[in-house]
Amino acid sequence: MPAITRIRVALASRSHDILIGKRILPNIFKKHALLHEKGIRALLLYDHRLKSTANRLIHSLGKTCVGRVSLSGGDATKDIQTLPLLYKEAAKARLDRQSIILALGGGVIGDVAGFFAATYLRGIRILHIPTTLVAQVDSAIGGKTGINLPFGKNLVGAFHQPSLIAIDLDLLRTLPQREFISGLAEVIKYGVIADPILFRRLELRMKSILCRDPSELAWIIPRCCKIKAKVVIEDEYERKGVRAILNFGHTLGHGIELASRYKLLHGEAIALGMIAATRLSHQLQKLPTAHALRIEKLIKQTGLPTRLNRHISTPRILAAMRLDKKVSQGCIRFVLSSRLGSVSTDISVSEKEILSILTSLR
Amino acid sequence: MPAITRIRVALASRSHDILIGKRILPNIFKKHALLHEKGIRALLLYDHRLKSTANRLIHSLGKTCVGRVSLSGGDATKDIQTLPLLYKEAAKARLDRQSIILALGGGVIGDVAGFFAATYLRGIRILHIPTTLVAQVDSAIGGKTGINLPFGKNLVGAFHQPSLIAIDLDLLRTLPQREFISGLAEVIKYGVIADPILFRRLELRMKSILCRDPSELAWIIPRCCKIKAKVVIEDEYERKGVRAILNFGHTLGHGIELASRYKLLHGEAIALGMIAATRLSHQLQKLPTAHALRIEKLIKQTGLPTRLNRHISTPRILAAMRLDKKVSQGCIRFVLSSRLGSVSTDISVSEKEILSILTSLR
Repeated sequence: MPAITRIRVALASRSHDILIGKRILPNIFKKHALLHEKGIRALLLYDHRLKSTANRLIHSLGKTCVGRVSLSGGDATKDIQTLPLLYKEAAKARLDRQSIILALGGGVIGDVAGFFAATYLRGIRILHIPTTLVAQVDSAIGGKTGINLPFGKNLVGAFHQPSLIAIDLDLLRTLPQREFISGLAEVIKYGVIADPILFRRLELRMKSILCRDPSELAWIIPRCCKIKAKVVIEDEYERKGVRAILNFGHTLGHGIELASRYKLLHGEAIALGMIAATRLSHQLQKLPTAHALRIEKLIKQTGLPTRLNRHISTPRILAAMRLDKKVSQGCIRFVLSSRLGSVSTDISVSEKEILSILTSLR
Repeated sequence: MPAITRIRVALASRSHDILIGKRILPNIFKKHALLHEKGIRALLLYDHRLKSTANRLIHSLGKTCVGRVSLSGGDATKDIQTLPLLYKEAAKARLDRQSIILALGGGVIGDVAGFFAATYLRGIRILHIPTTLVAQVDSAIGGKTGINLPFGKNLVGAFHQPSLIAIDLDLLRTLPQREFISGLAEVIKYGVIADPILFRRLELRMKSILCRDPSELAWIIPRCCKIKAKVVIEDEYERKGVRAILNFGHTLGHGIELASRYKLLHGEAIALGMIAATRLSHQLQKLPTAHALRIEKLIKQTGLPTRLNRHISTPRILAAMRLDKKVSQGCIRFVLSSRLGSVSTDISVSEKEILSILTSLR
């Protein structure tokens, strides 16, 4: 078996491993204790585009796998109306409290499957097999699950830690380039909020990274997972202000994503949100001009959007932001940076300042 | 202010109080710290039959209360389709992560409001004001929330501890007698599983209790709450087998409740389930005949059903039981008693034995 990086997410009774490697699927499950308890029943939820990977998984699981459900990986799946269908499949598969959900797919599949697992029988186990870059470095880690409402993103959800996260780097090979680039937005974010060495590496090697050089991915992805795991360990429920650092670029980013009616991918909206946050950081937090320029340049170099399309209207962005979870007692609060590799949370920004930044993005 | 009994439910960061007293509403909220943080926003969910109590509450809360939603207290409300309506009201009321849900009503309102609070913005605070006997002694305590599916009761849910439980004994005065009697099933259950003194008192004073003698209620209700709180403190997530003792009478009871299509109230179905569990206990756990007779006699004396209506078919009961959360890896497991005041959990009972007990209830 090839080399596997193991990252422990230490959360008392909710502790679990992140396993990362090349071509680790499906062999990694053949002997994993989780899936070999007596009488264990597993239900596989997967992105319909990953049918052949799903088939390989099911084959390796043998009679442990008692059902499969294919879902669209698009944002429309993150709807409360998806849940009754999943609950019905769970009942059909006779899942019990010892059963395990396997979630094979990107952020949408992980979020929906996670919320489903969090709420069926008041919570059953889930094992994440993230297949997109954004899911591998971000959304599969940390136990956040979310469902969108017509008027806001992830307004419904639960904290529900997985029992295992298995990251096969090989799955990224077939990811559409636009989705891969979108995932790089979160990678850049980790550099900005916590890791100048990662940021420097991205600046130096972006060309190879965009070609998905396996050795680059094998360096970058575990590094991002470690940052995310560390933050989650410190502040599992986002109550101490630590976990909020992950929201850099997300305050405006989520508003833009919603206002675009999901025509922008998550990372694309976050890229715009990060540029806005960088400019606000420069204005309000004395982020040095050189740092601000490096951030904007890296985002551009990655091929992420840097200008806000005129179809995404300012009033709609503002309306979406007001409904966001990051709004507290009526104030819109930002995560801003005063130097590359470090951020402060909970910074109140006036609507006037937000408007001016949005204008600068046009 | 009249005397208030305070029971502490010690659960680390989820610790909270149960406050019990006569005519403690709405004054108890006038000064409670929870509802007087700066800028706090509260949304009241209430049983539409309790409009005047809701009005008094809203008046006393002043501008803290930013919205109200009336719901039917019937089991039809415990449906996943209720949730989008509640999420919409929450968004309309601009609830944020610091906001509080107030749930005024019986078990159905508490369960739906609890699940809603558990899942909105990945969990906001809830304060329970139970208004029925079963909610006061049982369902409001312990953090279990639940939604029914067409094929099973409470199959969807979450554990979400309230921030406070306020029990006003005076609210029971207007409760319909059938619902009051139904609640007594859970009171009897506490006697059987943990408290022979409570059981004896119920035997001796059932006549006054049925007349809702205030001094009887003031003795019984805190005693039940203490038992429930102790069990929940020991086994919050029902993983250690301790909390499962509360399921005495519920394995068959839930099946009967579902098979009756909710024509039986929860406590009525549980009463039948307790008679079944008592007979199984006598057969399989050497529960002395005298104890078994006392349990059956007390249930009868309370005015709870002791015979299974022929409209509630055996195949339907069995089908409902198979889907229950209490089924583990294909076996149906019961909570049984070997002497009054003590039970054992996790006892496998064959389908043949269940059938024979069901026949004895006809």
